[in-house]
Amino acid sequence: MTLELVSEARCFDGLQRTYRHPSAATGTPMRVAVYLPPQAEHGPVPVVWFLAGLTCTEDNFTQKAGAQRVAAELGLALIAPDTSPRGEGVPDDPAYDFGQGAGFYLDATVSPWSQHFQMRRYIEDELPRLLGAELPIDPTRQSLCGHSMGGHGALTIALRNPSRYKAVSAFAPIVSPLNCPWGEKALSGYLGPDRVAWRPYDACALIADGARVPEILVDQGTADPFLERELKPHLLEEACRTTGIALTLNRRPGYDHSYFFIASFMESHLRWHAERLNGG
Amino acid sequence: MTLELVSEARCFDGLQRTYRHPSAATGTPMRVAVYLPPQAEHGPVPVVWFLAGLTCTEDNFTQKAGAQRVAAELGLALIAPDTSPRGEGVPDDPAYDFGQGAGFYLDATVSPWSQHFQMRRYIEDELPRLLGAELPIDPTRQSLCGHSMGGHGALTIALRNPSRYKAVSAFAPIVSPLNCPWGEKALSGYLGPDRVAWRPYDACALIADGARVPEILVDQGTADPFLERELKPHLLEEACRTTGIALTLNRRPGYDHSYFFIASFMESHLRWHAERLNGG
Repeated sequence: MTLELVSEARCFDGLQRTYRHPSAATGTPMRVAVYLPPQAEHGPVPVVWFLAGLTCTEDNFTQKAGAQRVAAELGLALIAPDTSPRGEGVPDDPAYDFGQGAGFYLDATVSPWSQHFQMRRYIEDELPRLLGAELPIDPTRQSLCGHSMGGHGALTIALRNPSRYKAVSAFAPIVSPLNCPWGEKALSGYLGPDRVAWRPYDACALIADGARVPEILVDQGTADPFLERELKPHLLEEACRTTGIALTLNRRPGYDHSYFFIASFMESHLRWHAERLNGG
Repeated sequence: MTLELVSEARCFDGLQRTYRHPSAATGTPMRVAVYLPPQAEHGPVPVVWFLAGLTCTEDNFTQKAGAQRVAAELGLALIAPDTSPRGEGVPDDPAYDFGQGAGFYLDATVSPWSQHFQMRRYIEDELPRLLGAELPIDPTRQSLCGHSMGGHGALTIALRNPSRYKAVSAFAPIVSPLNCPWGEKALSGYLGPDRVAWRPYDACALIADGARVPEILVDQGTADPFLERELKPHLLEEACRTTGIALTLNRRPGYDHSYFFIASFMESHLRWHAERLNGG
């Protein structure tokens, strides 16, 4: 067993687990939360990956989104990875938006970050293989969801791997790191000044460069304090409109950037995912 | 305004707020979380109080129980107080089960605890008055729920005030502090060695001494690590059976003591409360 079970709790007749495992990609121990619905007792189930935002660990979504109830009803596994490598030997930055807790789902090329901050390889390649080998999840029925920095992660991973994921949705995603302070800081710090190297980590740039998914679901609160400066959903709207990607962008009046917002619309996202994971 | 708004987030079309206010009972600032369902825009709504367990603040239930969805549907306000006074001038104990975070919903009589640890007066008298004066909640339609130490709080407050609360339920409650290590430590520490003074803070002793409520709902996980040593639901079963109190005790196979357990059965508790708050 590569996966070490850290905790397990029954939840809505399924099992909420946290695992720890060594990661070859990050060179550190990593933690990941997995919810297995009751249907997983009888065979492989489809899986929704949830990528979390700045400062989060595998716990935030798991404890605050209220997703297990609907996942149990629909027979979906939920996988919530951590957002970066962590620990004493891992470089960090005092800011909340860089370093530990802010991996941005990319493979860093700039020292000292490049040694451990390899979250793209970890999420795209290593973790699916590890979990797929030991858990009753169906590799042919996977989808991606995420919040803020994790919305950026979900969109970019789906756009780079359109045949692997059956659906992608996001809550308040960073849609274009090339065009916001969070993104400019992270991508320059992890990847260096050449903005061409940033484009695989920018949903709008990926679309401009030819990447396609058939459809995208996004929910965005209108009272989100990061809306104008960091999130800029109109950039994704433009990118999708000019390329024929079917974007459903729900602007939710009065909602902010918190898990109270995510919890309010989690059910609608999971039902949308289930239709695509279970459909033809 | 006695209540200072610390935070507010839209949640399931209602409002999740945190307030801070000075408390005469505890002599400290206190924090309380309040969820107002959308129905509160049109007039007073019934309210379910949720009393949390050891180590908790007003946040644990608010962030982890997933209660707002059902509260919004049923038109219930939710009030989640902190579990003790806190802060620099407040005595504390290094243990997790005594001092700050472990107020046990009692009025301490032993120094130095007696100066600030007056959680019974705070929850029974002061906080209902404060919130009732400023929020659209209906004082004639209140009920109590709680977890572990907070289940003890809910049961004892309901038994001492049977005409004020229309219903009481609990998750994994401490049903008899006189008969478990947590209770013996807390009650002796806060109230002194005379066990007669403990009886108003023990649900089973209150029932033995004549207190009555018509019915009680309890959910208890069978994999709860505190079941045998601290919680002892059979003592409440015996007390109710011999006195005609209608106890529904749901033993939930495989569930533990966590909020994953609480979240799994929160909806059934809130529907049970709503029937009694809205019924004749």
